[in-house]
Amino acid sequence: MAWADGAVRLVDQRRLPAELAFVEVGTVDELCAAIRAMVVRGAPALGVAGALGVALAAATGEDRSEAARRLVATRPTAVNLAWGVKRALAAPDPLAEAERLAEEDVERNRRLGAAGASLLPEGARVMTHCHAGSLACAGYGTALGIVRAAHEAGRRPSVWVKETRPVLQGSRITAWELQRLGIPATVVVDGAAGSLMAAGQVDAVVVGADRVAANGDVANKIGTYPLAVLARHHGVPFLVAAPTSTVDLGCPEGSSIPVEQRPPEEVAMLGGHRLAPEGVPVHNPAFDVTPASLVTALVTEDGVAEPPLGPALARLVGRPEAVG
Amino acid sequence: MAWADGAVRLVDQRRLPAELAFVEVGTVDELCAAIRAMVVRGAPALGVAGALGVALAAATGEDRSEAARRLVATRPTAVNLAWGVKRALAAPDPLAEAERLAEEDVERNRRLGAAGASLLPEGARVMTHCHAGSLACAGYGTALGIVRAAHEAGRRPSVWVKETRPVLQGSRITAWELQRLGIPATVVVDGAAGSLMAAGQVDAVVVGADRVAANGDVANKIGTYPLAVLARHHGVPFLVAAPTSTVDLGCPEGSSIPVEQRPPEEVAMLGGHRLAPEGVPVHNPAFDVTPASLVTALVTEDGVAEPPLGPALARLVGRPEAVG
Repeated sequence: MAWADGAVRLVDQRRLPAELAFVEVGTVDELCAAIRAMVVRGAPALGVAGALGVALAAATGEDRSEAARRLVATRPTAVNLAWGVKRALAAPDPLAEAERLAEEDVERNRRLGAAGASLLPEGARVMTHCHAGSLACAGYGTALGIVRAAHEAGRRPSVWVKETRPVLQGSRITAWELQRLGIPATVVVDGAAGSLMAAGQVDAVVVGADRVAANGDVANKIGTYPLAVLARHHGVPFLVAAPTSTVDLGCPEGSSIPVEQRPPEEVAMLGGHRLAPEGVPVHNPAFDVTPASLVTALVTEDGVAEPPLGPALARLVGRPEAVG
Repeated sequence: MAWADGAVRLVDQRRLPAELAFVEVGTVDELCAAIRAMVVRGAPALGVAGALGVALAAATGEDRSEAARRLVATRPTAVNLAWGVKRALAAPDPLAEAERLAEEDVERNRRLGAAGASLLPEGARVMTHCHAGSLACAGYGTALGIVRAAHEAGRRPSVWVKETRPVLQGSRITAWELQRLGIPATVVVDGAAGSLMAAGQVDAVVVGADRVAANGDVANKIGTYPLAVLARHHGVPFLVAAPTSTVDLGCPEGSSIPVEQRPPEEVAMLGGHRLAPEGVPVHNPAFDVTPASLVTALVTEDGVAEPPLGPALARLVGRPEAVG
């Protein structure tokens, strides 16, 4: 994600792994459309994109508050989007703030990665869902940041990549990033998580988050909650990687997190092929909520929150200066 | 599935829901290829297909035992295939035996459906995985037979159809059959099962089976086991619909059931589109095993087996004449 000549340049995440293509957006409306279409996605990346949106409004002379409102409405669940927009709106120079935010994000992800890697055993076989890697952030990644830090420390992690229907961020983007990083990865359908755990093939689950409530409930890509239930059933640690900007202390618990409903075509169609009969309804929530009780640890750049998550998050996020 | 002029005519299940197309196979090798490619699939349907394969061998003058061996090897998990082949091989007229088997299957499924429907509450919201309907059998269906019997009895069931990656038998075939039957159905991705159960939107899970071990462990489409774990976590009844021909008393428990591995392309490609990067390995087991301890009831045409399933199955299958 970069600013060039008054426009925002984005990797088109929809076209991976077939090609590494870019999209340029020059107005707030174009950026809103790109966010809705998931050209750019991933909670921390949406934070930076939101801030860049305010910078676009400033550059084109649009009303910044009105632009902010439209940007935030594109994806209601991911709290980082609202957070990035708010930061840029409060700054004298929105573009400089967006760039600061991106730099900070990478640095925070590196700290988060190091903190999380220490929780993985040597040679860990990690299972992940969706994509919380470099492209979902300004860089490095959150869930994949943990795997990456373990890899860089020579601790030989490998990854079971759940493909993550309907948008297939796992097989399309996570697998692509891991391949580029030289980290062993194997793609499986979402339904294969259970038998792999039953066979003792999974040492830890590591996922990202789109919003964490004050009590530690976690909204993340649809399919995360069943994975947490499976992990608990098999005694596999369930780790959530999230920068503190993803923790929403204003949201008391998971039931207060709005869950975005996505278009039925994401499920019923693929590349022009019809996968479900015309006329049959599709229910397509983008996220689900995992209760804090199923989370083994929540890894942030400011430290690891362990149960009970509510008080731990209040300590980490409420007074970040108080912790390492 | 029908015999016409020395050939077997099959609905091409790969092409649904886009079109209702047929494939004609005139030799055992063509039939083996069609079974491997999943032109025809579903445990009871494979039983009839296997018997028709022996009839093809008889018609073309091939060695029947050798043909039987090749047919059985195409799909190692579904026990009905071996059962159908064996019945046709032992019969003086394999074609007549295949036709008898198909007629019996429909009649058995109707009885199974009626037995299972009585276990569903009025207006049941049923969740199903994969496809155990009319096309997976000679007709009527097993898991969908239960839903159908409830519908015919005016008990207004509706169905959450899990799309069932990788081959999408749920969205492609189950949704198509339910639409034709006028039974309300909604398609969801496999990962949406958890949040629907958590929201109290699922009254029962009903699935088919590819093989049931003597102790009641159930091999079925990959993704069935995680669904059983979710059902248990949420206190939702987990019903398995299987004709007695799917119960393999020679197989003591789930771990002795061979699990077929399918080609990686089923996961990595779709309609010519690449979904996972080239060079990244794919693990694609076709089935998983649900332990008997997670099964609320196993519904057969000869009655309902309740836990402990081992003794119940021995009664139902070992001495079928002893039960209703």
